[in-house]
Amino acid sequence: MTLDAVLSRIDDDLPQSLERLMDLLRIPSISTDPAFKAECERAADWVVDDLRSLGVTADKRATPGHPMVVGHHPGQGRHLLFYGHYDVQPVDPLNLWNRDPFDPAIEDTANGRVIRARGAGDDKGQFMTFLEACRAWKAVHGTLPGHITFLFEGEEESGSPSLIPFLKDNADELRADLALICDTAMFGDGTPAIVTMLRGLLGEELTIRGPLRDLHSGYYGGPAINPIRVLARIIAGLHDETGRITVPGFYDGVPELSQALRDQWQGLGFDPEAFLGAVGLSVPAGERDRSVLEQVWARPTCEVNGIQGGYNGDGFKTVLPAEARAKISFRLVGTQDPQAIRRAFRAMVEAQLPADCTVEWTSHGASPASQMSIDDPAFELARAAVNPEWPGAAAYIGGGGSIPIAGHFKDLLGMDSMLLGFGKDDDQIHSPNEKYDLVSFHKGIRSWARVLDALTR
Amino acid sequence: MTLDAVLSRIDDDLPQSLERLMDLLRIPSISTDPAFKAECERAADWVVDDLRSLGVTADKRATPGHPMVVGHHPGQGRHLLFYGHYDVQPVDPLNLWNRDPFDPAIEDTANGRVIRARGAGDDKGQFMTFLEACRAWKAVHGTLPGHITFLFEGEEESGSPSLIPFLKDNADELRADLALICDTAMFGDGTPAIVTMLRGLLGEELTIRGPLRDLHSGYYGGPAINPIRVLARIIAGLHDETGRITVPGFYDGVPELSQALRDQWQGLGFDPEAFLGAVGLSVPAGERDRSVLEQVWARPTCEVNGIQGGYNGDGFKTVLPAEARAKISFRLVGTQDPQAIRRAFRAMVEAQLPADCTVEWTSHGASPASQMSIDDPAFELARAAVNPEWPGAAAYIGGGGSIPIAGHFKDLLGMDSMLLGFGKDDDQIHSPNEKYDLVSFHKGIRSWARVLDALTR
Repeated sequence: MTLDAVLSRIDDDLPQSLERLMDLLRIPSISTDPAFKAECERAADWVVDDLRSLGVTADKRATPGHPMVVGHHPGQGRHLLFYGHYDVQPVDPLNLWNRDPFDPAIEDTANGRVIRARGAGDDKGQFMTFLEACRAWKAVHGTLPGHITFLFEGEEESGSPSLIPFLKDNADELRADLALICDTAMFGDGTPAIVTMLRGLLGEELTIRGPLRDLHSGYYGGPAINPIRVLARIIAGLHDETGRITVPGFYDGVPELSQALRDQWQGLGFDPEAFLGAVGLSVPAGERDRSVLEQVWARPTCEVNGIQGGYNGDGFKTVLPAEARAKISFRLVGTQDPQAIRRAFRAMVEAQLPADCTVEWTSHGASPASQMSIDDPAFELARAAVNPEWPGAAAYIGGGGSIPIAGHFKDLLGMDSMLLGFGKDDDQIHSPNEKYDLVSFHKGIRSWARVLDALTR
Repeated sequence: MTLDAVLSRIDDDLPQSLERLMDLLRIPSISTDPAFKAECERAADWVVDDLRSLGVTADKRATPGHPMVVGHHPGQGRHLLFYGHYDVQPVDPLNLWNRDPFDPAIEDTANGRVIRARGAGDDKGQFMTFLEACRAWKAVHGTLPGHITFLFEGEEESGSPSLIPFLKDNADELRADLALICDTAMFGDGTPAIVTMLRGLLGEELTIRGPLRDLHSGYYGGPAINPIRVLARIIAGLHDETGRITVPGFYDGVPELSQALRDQWQGLGFDPEAFLGAVGLSVPAGERDRSVLEQVWARPTCEVNGIQGGYNGDGFKTVLPAEARAKISFRLVGTQDPQAIRRAFRAMVEAQLPADCTVEWTSHGASPASQMSIDDPAFELARAAVNPEWPGAAAYIGGGGSIPIAGHFKDLLGMDSMLLGFGKDDDQIHSPNEKYDLVSFHKGIRSWARVLDALTR
């Protein structure tokens, strides 16, 4: 009964909820660009004020970068921590936007009404679904439903340099029973999803050097080693004919899917032809014996993200270049150890180097995969709670990308994360014309009210 | 006696000769970059003016690209045509230069005084040795030594697209008894060389396309094809384990060296360790069963001159790129047919393309190898004439680079070419810090005076 009252309150208050979101979206809190430092402060202040209006004891905490916002609300039962980020991606190329990215508006589109603005989908619109659920709860009950800690950062879009030190320094204050994160998408159009598997990421950059300087391929072509050819041979050898990665020991810690999960994914009605067709492809290019969904959610990869060497301008230059370089990344799953893979990859490359070549390495971060332990009954409670809100049955899914915060919560605070988000694949996050569906916002608020009810009862 | 007077005049006039060369080197006549079109015109005008100051009837001839410069000087006896090119290579990477590449200067180095600038060695410094020899001759004799035609092009470094049509359209005007070309190097340090074998060149550029747009490697990494990986695999397959090129039919028309030439080359005292050591290398990387000299002068190659794909800026971006491209060239020998190899190469690549990839081709010129007929007595006259000027006895050698003009002169005008140049292997042509030795310039002018004397007597 009281849940119904909260849901009604949410419906009635939706115009005001939108007003508050629009207000926040007007703050250009781009974290990577120092020119917007003051705007990040403004966004942090805005979140502090919003939390205080919910009866939360909140304040801004200085870091070497943009501030954290921390809030506490006392209560009984399961202690929840809600995490969000108030910073947004840069907006360039600005000319591809259909409006000023920081002048938000509701637009009618062929696929329904959307909130158009930078940050609408990532992450302001998403985290506001949780805060607005809290607001409706408070309006009905006079208080929030339980013991909730709030954490907002302002550096998520710029590598979160302050996050790990802050979590370490404030571990006792921030540790809860379960973290709630609203920064992921639904499955397809209307199936709410709890992401329980996130791939990790290992980034490597290598520069292969041969001759002391660029050579003329007429005078040295033949006897002089060509670093581009050396690099190409190394890259070509990273996968075998079946698409498996050849780095020794790479598959240590890669789990097979449980039959239960395999069945659940089978039931999602995922359409691999449509998924690939949307980007002009037709043939899955990953490991030969794995489904597309498995390739994206549950299998590790090795990709070349960039390669460069020699002359690449207009026309032709018969140069035999002194060096060639590549950026190579690995998506990791299960308990694959990023550092062990880094060592094995480097050893494998170095063993293939011809006598006259050297390699220089640059590390670009290494985060293991995250696997949520869905044995915690909170997961089944939440999944059952959101079901009535949406056309599709809520599902546990994988996420091909990396959300490092979930790993940090686990490693530093010993806390699992429940990733429940209402984004859609076409939200154009990180791109021009970012949006968030009005349906996602409205039903997202209602979904969180249901989850809060289930988890704090 | 009169030759001695010319040689004295050359010595006395050297500072002014250098001034004139510096003046020309200040013109950034980069032919491959459209931004420098006006500079190419300026360089052509400069050459016209210089020829006129020698009493030559000279003018600029428009082409669809950069202009030709043609000059005529009447006279008796053997009709000579001198060819040079006024365009230069691009200068990137600019940060590796020790000075502005178009602000030439004389520098003292451990190996003597050098003229430092883009074009100093290729080809402005070289062709100016001939013009300055003419200038001294005129100062002493009041005229040039005989019937000389001059031809300068401005597209040598960008594939000479206008050259063949121009030679065809003006064959009667340009045909002479022998072409003289000063665009090659000496053998070692002070052995003047007449190059009688030149490798041909076939240039290809390919762009492999996969997904419709750049993808996020988290969401698509695995099932989506990566064009960089496809390109790397193609490049890795272009050579077998012994260094042989795998394009079908590639070795058709590749001759074995005659024993006579093999013996003459053996006698040159070529030091493969020093040759490779000069550029930081130690192990010959070409075909396993061929000497270094043979690899450079008499064997064909396949090289990657440039490769690019994905994100190559600072930091890391987990992009799965929509395309990757490479510039690939083949050095050709004997009677290898560039067009047949182009067809075989493209067919080989296309046969390897995965279903979701396409390839776009750009042709960058195709010229067969050249073999001079040294039966013409002019070759022995010239070889004997330059001998007194240098410590080493002049030799007939091969040239690893491509000077397609020699082949075109033969094919289109029925004219042999004598390639006599004074460059050195360490001139860094096509690289940062290009230079031309002051000794090369001075003795080069004197050498041409001797050759002109011998060939026009």
